[in-house]
This record gives sequence, C-alpha cells and structure tokens, in this order.
Amino acid sequence: MSTGRGFPVSEFEARVARAQALMLAEGLDLLLLTTEPEVRYFSGFMTQFWQSPTRPWFLIVPRAGKPVAVIPAIGAVAMQRTWLEDIRTWPSPRPEDEGLSLLAATMIEFGGRAAVVGMASGPETHLRLPLSDYAALQASLPDATFRDDAGIHRRLRMIKSEAEIGKIRTACEMVSGVFEDWPSWLAPGMTEREIFRDFKIACLKAGADDVSYLVGGAGPGGYGDIISPPSERPVRDGDVLILDTGTLHDGYFCDFDRNFAIGTPTDAVRSAYATAYAATDAGLAAARPGATCGDLFRVMAEVLEAGGAQVGDVGRLGHGLGMQLTEWPSITASDRTVLEPGMVLTLEPGLEYAPGKMMVHEENIVIREDGAELLTRRAARDIPGVT
Amino acid sequence: MSTGRGFPVSEFEARVARAQALMLAEGLDLLLLTTEPEVRYFSGFMTQFWQSPTRPWFLIVPRAGKPVAVIPAIGAVAMQRTWLEDIRTWPSPRPEDEGLSLLAATMIEFGGRAAVVGMASGPETHLRLPLSDYAALQASLPDATFRDDAGIHRRLRMIKSEAEIGKIRTACEMVSGVFEDWPSWLAPGMTEREIFRDFKIACLKAGADDVSYLVGGAGPGGYGDIISPPSERPVRDGDVLILDTGTLHDGYFCDFDRNFAIGTPTDAVRSAYATAYAATDAGLAAARPGATCGDLFRVMAEVLEAGGAQVGDVGRLGHGLGMQLTEWPSITASDRTVLEPGMVLTLEPGLEYAPGKMMVHEENIVIREDGAELLTRRAARDIPGVT
Repeated sequence: MSTGRGFPVSEFEARVARAQALMLAEGLDLLLLTTEPEVRYFSGFMTQFWQSPTRPWFLIVPRAGKPVAVIPAIGAVAMQRTWLEDIRTWPSPRPEDEGLSLLAATMIEFGGRAAVVGMASGPETHLRLPLSDYAALQASLPDATFRDDAGIHRRLRMIKSEAEIGKIRTACEMVSGVFEDWPSWLAPGMTEREIFRDFKIACLKAGADDVSYLVGGAGPGGYGDIISPPSERPVRDGDVLILDTGTLHDGYFCDFDRNFAIGTPTDAVRSAYATAYAATDAGLAAARPGATCGDLFRVMAEVLEAGGAQVGDVGRLGHGLGMQLTEWPSITASDRTVLEPGMVLTLEPGLEYAPGKMMVHEENIVIREDGAELLTRRAARDIPGVT
Repeated sequence: MSTGRGFPVSEFEARVARAQALMLAEGLDLLLLTTEPEVRYFSGFMTQFWQSPTRPWFLIVPRAGKPVAVIPAIGAVAMQRTWLEDIRTWPSPRPEDEGLSLLAATMIEFGGRAAVVGMASGPETHLRLPLSDYAALQASLPDATFRDDAGIHRRLRMIKSEAEIGKIRTACEMVSGVFEDWPSWLAPGMTEREIFRDFKIACLKAGADDVSYLVGGAGPGGYGDIISPPSERPVRDGDVLILDTGTLHDGYFCDFDRNFAIGTPTDAVRSAYATAYAATDAGLAAARPGATCGDLFRVMAEVLEAGGAQVGDVGRLGHGLGMQLTEWPSITASDRTVLEPGMVLTLEPGLEYAPGKMMVHEENIVIREDGAELLTRRAARDIPGVT
C-alpha cells in the first residue's frame, strides 16, 4: 500500500484544466470556493485549522491560470508549501472586514466587475461564511452575478484519479486489518466506550491519521441506531455490535462497518446478516459503467425485500466518498447518476429484521471499466462470534 | 473530575427560557438553527453523523414551549433520547425536497406565515444548508422575514453554565496530565507523525472522547507554522516542538498547547518562552469581570512588546471555547466584549522572536467574580528539555 503523501503538481494542473474547460462551457468567469474540501481539491492545502470557524478561507479559480488564494495571514506559511503562487492575506480576525474587501478586489482583478461567479450550491454543499458576510460581499460587487457552479465541482470530484483512489485504498486496507484483528480490541464485558477507544487506538497504531468518524453500538438481539456515540453499557452475550468508521489517510476517507455477534448469534441475526451480505453481492455485480445509481439501488433492494425487509423508495443504500465522509452520488431509487470509471462508492445495504433491530453492511468500491473493484477486504461471510 | 455525561433537563429549560426572553425583546417569532453546536445547544443531540453533509438538520425555537426538531428519519431514534418531544422527520436523502416542505409547514405552525425568523449570521457562524435550498426555503415562505438573530445565540453560548464549565475542565485536566507525562509519548528521534500518533493514543487512554484537533510541529531553533499536519521529519537536538490540541470530553473542547525543547534550549528560546509565560501571567491578572477583550489583549501585548515582539493591532491573543474549538469572543485589540463570569477563554499570547520562529503559549480559563480561574494546569515555568 502506498504511503506517499500529497499529490504531484500535475494532479492539480489536471483538476484546474478540467474545471476551466467546464467554466468556459458554462459561461462562468470565476469559481469561488469556501469549504475545506473545495479549497483543498484545487490547492492541496490541508490543515485541521478549519475546525476553528472564526476565519473564512477563499479560493478563486479564474478562467485561465492557477487558482488564487485569499486567506487569513495565519495560513500563509502553510499555503506557500502548496503549488499555488498567488496568495493574498489579510490580518485576521478582523470582523469588520473579514477578508471581504481583499476578496472583492481580487475577484474584480480576475473576473472583472461584471464577473459571473459560480459557487457550489446543490446537495452535499454549503457556504462556509457568515450569512451577513455573504450579503456584504454581494453588495460590494453589484455588477457581478453570483450563481450556482453548474455542478462543476461535483462533476470533477465525483471521478477520482488513481492517486486519489490509492489514498482511499490505503485507508480501507488499514481499517480492514484492524477489523479482522478484532480480538485485539474487542471482548465480551467491555463497554461500548471502551470498545470505541481501543478500536481508535488500534487504527492509529495501524497508521491511520485520524479516526474522525466512529459510530455504532450494540443491543440485545440487534442494534436499533447507527449514528450514536458509545454508551457505558457493557456488551453482553446475545448482543449484536456494529462499528462504522470514517478513518482518514492523507485527507481521504474510507467509510465502512463491521458487525459482530457477542456469544452465539440467533438464527434471526444470522439470516439478516446473510441477507445484507447477499445484497452487497448483488451490488458488487451491478456496479459497472453505464448502470445508474437507481439501478444499483434496485438490485440491492430486491435482495433485501426477498429477505423480508421493507425497503420501498426511501433512504439510500450507499454513497460516494473521498475527501468527505459522504459525497456525490447517492445510491437512491431516484438518483439517475450514471456510474463511470473512477467513481468511489460505498455499498451500504441494510434492513430492519425485527422491530428496532437493524443489520447494515458496508463495503467500499471503485468503478472500473469492467465492474466493481473492492477497496475494502470483504466482511466475513458469517457474522463473527465474539466469545 | 466529573465523568457525568449529558445535562439535566433543567439545563436545556434554562437555555430555552433565556433565548425566548431575548426573542421577545428582539421581536423574533422563531429561531432557526442548522449547525451542529446550534442544534446541540438546545437539544443535547450529539452525533458524529454531522460529518456527512448529505442531510440538513433543523431546530426551531418558538416563542414559547420546547424546541421542535425537523430532521432526517435516520436521526429519529437518537433524537428521541433527548428532552425534545416534537420531532418531525422526512425520508432522507430526498434532494428534490430535502426537508424543506416539512420545515416550512412547521415554521408556519409555530410562527405564522409572517414569522420573523432569526438566524445566526455573524462571526463564527455559517448556514449548514445548500445555498439553493436556502433560496427555496425563503421562496416558499414569501411573507416571512429572515434576519439575523440579534446575536441571541452568541450571547447565550458565550456564558457557560457550571455544568458546561465542568466538562471543559475535565477535558483540560485530562490533557494537562498527558502533556505533563510527556516522556511516555515524546523522545528525540521520533518523527512528528509518530509524536502526534502517540500523543493521541495517550489522550484516548486518559479518557478523552476524541482528539479531533492536533496541530503543531518542530523546527531547528523554533517552529514557524502552528496549523500544519505532522511531517515525517524526526525531531532533533536544537528543535523546538509545539503541540496544540482541541480534545473533546462529552462534546466540549479544551484548546491549549505546550512547547518542548529537544535537547538544551538556546537562550533565545528560553527568553521567548519567558516572555510568553509572562504575557500569560499578565492576562491571568487582567481577566476579570468588567475588563474588555481589548483590555486583555493590550496587557498581554505590552508584555510581548516589552520582550521585543511586534504585536501591533493584528491577530488575536485568545478566544472563547466550548462546544466549538473556537467561539466568541475574540481577544483582539478592537473587541469590546465585556468579560463576564462564566466566560471560558483561551489566553494565547505568541511572538515571533526570530524570522520565521514563533513561540505561542496557551491556557484555558473561566472568568469568575473575582478574576480568572485556570482550567488547565499551568505550563512549566521553564521550557521542558527533552533528552
């Protein structure tokens, strides 16, 4: 597995060239980017400092040339290590003008006063900027047009490069190993909190940068909630435990889960596990270029329904992943995104096999010309029994 | 140290009562909340699932009565464990109507068609919602007025309850212990990445829920950048190392740093350390009810400048903390926020003592009637030498 960090400059040049070709086609003069993954995608700039919401960070992609960073002075040294050259800073925090005048002047310089400015605005996006500052920015550029980015950012990020796929694979392989080595961090009688802690430590020791997402839990005969933090309850004979983790390698996530039976699983648990496993098999077979996300949803849903589950057309059975724990597309009944080589997806079929008892499986794949390539090492065919 | 999790219902009742009194005074019919800390503050709802940007989550605070949750169905079980009673869900993801019609109907029910809706809009805030969905929400409520929340959310969150202070203190004490026990995770020759990993493991073993923020680094004679991820460079004799962490206990952050000299520190390093230490002393003495953040900035800046630093009026020398790594207020020259009992702050004086060589100290305090109470155990008076 590769442990090379960062990307060659050619990676960023290719991303920008694709963006600029689409900007031309869509009539956009500038892309204005404000969130961590948006800025990182075009710059390579990576810092946990984004967790502080005090300061906005801006990246402008012009019609030609490299992106321009308009950032708080505290980030200058770190941004200078990226491939960008034009880095403009203001002393921050300065709430009365938190970078806005510098940003506006830069936007005029690169796009003109009447620039058509594209901003990510659809699903999975937000504007990382106080509403009041966004209003002030628009007011300071009265001749500019602020509109959506015609999905340019989504369209680019949805197709991963081999270098990106390699980072996700590294994360998947590290965590696959930790899950397979469960006797080192899981035993009956441990509380959920202890299990979470020891799992995180095992991931860090295996080389993960951060275990930024870990949810799950256990319950007698099954779990009913897969998004909660751990409780102080010890896992006991008869419990089913799920851990679902988004673990990071060099800024890219894996996102998958594993299930464990404490003691001997009941027939109902075995059967639900087998149904989710078979649904994943169906998804793996159907995940090829040309199929839509809706197609992929339906083949998995059919297996789940044949196993007795109510799926209907709600929820989703997987999603894109990469620089975010979840990103485009969504594997839902109504999503018409056509699968293409380079898309990295989770397959995440789940069912409620008894009132309040869920079984969810998750694997990570990349779409290749000839079908799905697993990035995770597949879950065990039978639910592991922890004794 | 308390390990009690969550809050009694009376905590949430008091928060809502204060918010509703301010809403009445400010002429607001509803507060509309969309971010993780905003929703958690009034509900107690805590999940890492917010890391997935697919689904918006909404909380409405009406003029009277409990807040109302309008959330994706996947969160219903977890939200039902909170003190809230009125929980409305939609099957998500559903991009064509991602909760908006349900939210609009709920807003009309509780605020009327002509509701005046307050939203957090100033520094440290953002709207966690695609821009296109926000526009659609406003269009679907043409008679409603969307405006800022008159700082209500900021005003409430800036003053912590004793229960909140206790959680921050727990985080501070855990991490103070880990820093003091540095020989267990730090030795010359380790790479920055190894040091970060072992520090995180030590925090988890000490009981931290997550080490979600860890930045810093080392450099010969000093470090020049305090926001970067770790490098593969081994720390060597003559380096100065800083680790700055935001570690979580039950949803509340500590945020402080510690400096280490690898081998024997130079006189310049000792002197810079002494200056930052003395600036912190000055901040501790000045941090009392009635002083402004600007006052606090100036007393620390004077010590730094007496030590030869250029401070001027840029940057900041500390900030609020709590449910976010950084929150209101900012300790800047121009911030006129008056300190009040219950405010939790970092004091974070720093100086550049040679070109590209910084020294930053950070402690966490709570403002009491008679002055500052330290929540962290104070850094060593002399920089620890790691041999």
